[in-house]
Amino acid sequence: MTGMTRRSLLTMIGTAAGSSAMYYAMTAMGHAMPSDYSGPIQLEGNPNGTKVLILGAGLAGMTAALEMRAAGYQVEVLEFREKAGGRCWTLRSGDTYTELGGATQTVDFAEGNYINPGPWRIPHNHYAVMDYCRRLGVELEPFIQTNYNAYVHRSDAYGGRPMRMKEVLTDYRGHISELLAKAVDQDRLDDMVTEEDKELLLDSLRRFGVLNDEHEYVESLSTSRYRGYEKQPGGGEGAAPIPSELLDPSEVIQSRLWTYLATHETMNHHSPMFQPVGGMDGIARGFEREVGDLITYNAKVVSLQQDENGVTVQWEDKVNGGTNTSTADYCVCTIPFSILGQIDHNLSGGLSQIISEMPYNGATKVGLEFNRRFWEQDEDIYGGITYTDQAITQISYPSTGYLSDGPAVLLGAYTWRGPNTFQFNAMQPEERIEMALQMGEKIHPQYREEFKTGVAVTWHKVPWVLGCSGIWQDRERDYETAIQIDNRVVCAGEHLSYLSAWMEGAILSSLDAVSRLHEVVMNGE
Amino acid sequence: MTGMTRRSLLTMIGTAAGSSAMYYAMTAMGHAMPSDYSGPIQLEGNPNGTKVLILGAGLAGMTAALEMRAAGYQVEVLEFREKAGGRCWTLRSGDTYTELGGATQTVDFAEGNYINPGPWRIPHNHYAVMDYCRRLGVELEPFIQTNYNAYVHRSDAYGGRPMRMKEVLTDYRGHISELLAKAVDQDRLDDMVTEEDKELLLDSLRRFGVLNDEHEYVESLSTSRYRGYEKQPGGGEGAAPIPSELLDPSEVIQSRLWTYLATHETMNHHSPMFQPVGGMDGIARGFEREVGDLITYNAKVVSLQQDENGVTVQWEDKVNGGTNTSTADYCVCTIPFSILGQIDHNLSGGLSQIISEMPYNGATKVGLEFNRRFWEQDEDIYGGITYTDQAITQISYPSTGYLSDGPAVLLGAYTWRGPNTFQFNAMQPEERIEMALQMGEKIHPQYREEFKTGVAVTWHKVPWVLGCSGIWQDRERDYETAIQIDNRVVCAGEHLSYLSAWMEGAILSSLDAVSRLHEVVMNGE
Repeated sequence: MTGMTRRSLLTMIGTAAGSSAMYYAMTAMGHAMPSDYSGPIQLEGNPNGTKVLILGAGLAGMTAALEMRAAGYQVEVLEFREKAGGRCWTLRSGDTYTELGGATQTVDFAEGNYINPGPWRIPHNHYAVMDYCRRLGVELEPFIQTNYNAYVHRSDAYGGRPMRMKEVLTDYRGHISELLAKAVDQDRLDDMVTEEDKELLLDSLRRFGVLNDEHEYVESLSTSRYRGYEKQPGGGEGAAPIPSELLDPSEVIQSRLWTYLATHETMNHHSPMFQPVGGMDGIARGFEREVGDLITYNAKVVSLQQDENGVTVQWEDKVNGGTNTSTADYCVCTIPFSILGQIDHNLSGGLSQIISEMPYNGATKVGLEFNRRFWEQDEDIYGGITYTDQAITQISYPSTGYLSDGPAVLLGAYTWRGPNTFQFNAMQPEERIEMALQMGEKIHPQYREEFKTGVAVTWHKVPWVLGCSGIWQDRERDYETAIQIDNRVVCAGEHLSYLSAWMEGAILSSLDAVSRLHEVVMNGE
Repeated sequence: MTGMTRRSLLTMIGTAAGSSAMYYAMTAMGHAMPSDYSGPIQLEGNPNGTKVLILGAGLAGMTAALEMRAAGYQVEVLEFREKAGGRCWTLRSGDTYTELGGATQTVDFAEGNYINPGPWRIPHNHYAVMDYCRRLGVELEPFIQTNYNAYVHRSDAYGGRPMRMKEVLTDYRGHISELLAKAVDQDRLDDMVTEEDKELLLDSLRRFGVLNDEHEYVESLSTSRYRGYEKQPGGGEGAAPIPSELLDPSEVIQSRLWTYLATHETMNHHSPMFQPVGGMDGIARGFEREVGDLITYNAKVVSLQQDENGVTVQWEDKVNGGTNTSTADYCVCTIPFSILGQIDHNLSGGLSQIISEMPYNGATKVGLEFNRRFWEQDEDIYGGITYTDQAITQISYPSTGYLSDGPAVLLGAYTWRGPNTFQFNAMQPEERIEMALQMGEKIHPQYREEFKTGVAVTWHKVPWVLGCSGIWQDRERDYETAIQIDNRVVCAGEHLSYLSAWMEGAILSSLDAVSRLHEVVMNGE
């Protein structure tokens, strides 16, 4: 990299003059949206061999391991599973997964196909994740969040027929723009809109809503250019386009399909989004390349005790049997509270209570492999998401391997709260898959004919986390207590962030915990 | 591919029962938007060695060559340049390009970097291009059209400061939603909105515009979730998000930045869009792999004559010198009318007049290579487009190589009509580059420090086409004449389509011309 990046300059300012100086520098430099993350953390000073025990080799644990070893700490990581990554997890052909209750699934996908049961997309504004991907050499490709040609679907709208997003969106926008433009044009809003703004507002609405000169949203080649044509413009003979009929405005309103029109408009879903090439666990593998040598796998922590001298952790060796003891000066505990609450520990009362009381969201994801990409071949849908009011919530088409022949995997269900979750929880894996097929075939009639195999993960039954993400009973009341360094132990993970369930939350929580722990080590409490 | 695709079924129906049967079948099968293209063309019957001479090895010419050889024709292709592809063209490190007037540019980009002077993105609904990419094994990757974190910029708005798309878009949408919601809520539109729709319309506006329960668009964590925060949610200490201030509604209206808010909402720009991995000429190379053996390169056509016996073409050998003659039974002429008008030919009067009168658009593209991806590293812009009212019109960031170190190329100008075009035309290449730098640095102050090298193509000066795309003086009057088979010659290309300047138009025009020509060959006129 030639020269100094703006971010590295900001980091220097931050290091030299503190975070508020950095904040003002960022603003002055036109960083309209300061991130909580402004570059790699700097842990200054020599910890002189201080040892840290890190519990859990998910993204929070491995972030801590990477940064603390780099700062000179002696680091040991204990991980329950046989591999690192935690919820940053990809299931591929040949993988076996046994859930709570004993049901075992062996993934029978074709070579190269996969499903990410946990995180599956990276917002471009999740700066820490993006920066670690850069530092760890994790190649990213775009994740198609928005596909105007995908469907919006409600069982009670349009006779249950899936509608193309572009049609509903364009018609809704046209309809509301027409209403507003007419109201403005007829001087009904003169108390709300100044005379100075009036003409420009009308100009803008004509453009935004694709209205004609009379402020009407009508069937025309102009509106078809946005919503799609009855027959597209072509070449040679008979190539003139034919405009498409509009949906009835009142039907669009009554359909409630507008529920899905802003799903891609939140910060966490703004275009562009990304995914690692080959599966989300590419990030886990990137971290593991750096800190894998520090990790003891198959280590089930059964006790976490601390006193004035240090931290003592007992863990069972799941492969060789027996109980081992690890000790350290400090501990970064990234074990989900859902699990930590079941482990013998002597953490302080306030923290203990939060740990034992935090419920976890239970999401369900179903990966379905089909013999061919009928969504591309028959329906011209390349990546992106179809939304439905059925329990599966959405269908997400693969953002990779476009146009290829052979079997492909789509996300046939992703549901993360409410009654649907419990419905899926109560089922065996094959029942979840069957439910995803039943609901999905209402949108894609090809489902049954093309179905090959599936895998279904319901997070309340994932043995090593028992849920998908922590839920605050009362964040206002509990958050500060939960993140505090408790004598020699600090907890970290997505559950200790304002970005629950996102990898960014896990990493930012870890970086903050590590920074504060380092402060204690260097300067005392 | 297992089973029959819907499209191949449609093709069968089309072949067996004619296009209107196919049309109704498509509609019945839920193809909401029949394309002009519904699968590979079927040229039935044996042309018994009929020879076709194809002029031009751009996409139209190579499509014709591929399909006609497959149908049993004897095919010869003459191409002016040393390679195939025509305007489907990529400039890479080491390439040399000499424009009209003699200015020569040698591209000095780093290995792997490129710019597409012609077409640079593929709408997912350009079905013919997509299908040929599939058939020809051209690997596609997403082209990021929409980037909510890129800028919208006008020299006279906000003191010339570039604004993030997400802020202007969210605030504009919020403002108009608030106006409409209040008007509806205050019963001012009772003659336009039924009582039955009223509450649902208000619900929808609250969601679409991110309004509060009082139908106001106000500074809040809710609106920040859409427009961006002052400080994003983080992890650990001090992680609570801080909402961002809204733009003044009247300023947004007055700024005219709403001009750019629907640029990604037309069919030709709907998400997702695609590009071939490694450069647009990947498509040209894909065709060339199939039909390269039929092409004579460096063949400058100087005469095209037809009579009752056949077609005779004279061409100069640009490498070995001398004039050669090629003859055939029929000719598919894909030479742009801007060039064809200068060639001696005996085409009919009506067609001749259209050929000689068709003006060509002159677009300009400037590729700028910088030492590093400052747009990613400093500004968190990964792919996508910034819009400006300056002559450069837009800046498009590379949709590939995300997060990588080393030099990268962005599109520093793309202007396609009006006075800007003539301004760029009049300049020498280095002046165009300088202009792109001067205008671009108003948006990215890093431009000068990081600039490495550039290349500028202005299409009116491209010797083999003299423009970017054909413009109809009066399409209504002339189109049918221009596309007719003129005795033994049929013209094809983007200029003979309703998709001017798009590769889809070139291919569809060619497929139609080839189909009609085949009809003549098989059944006589």
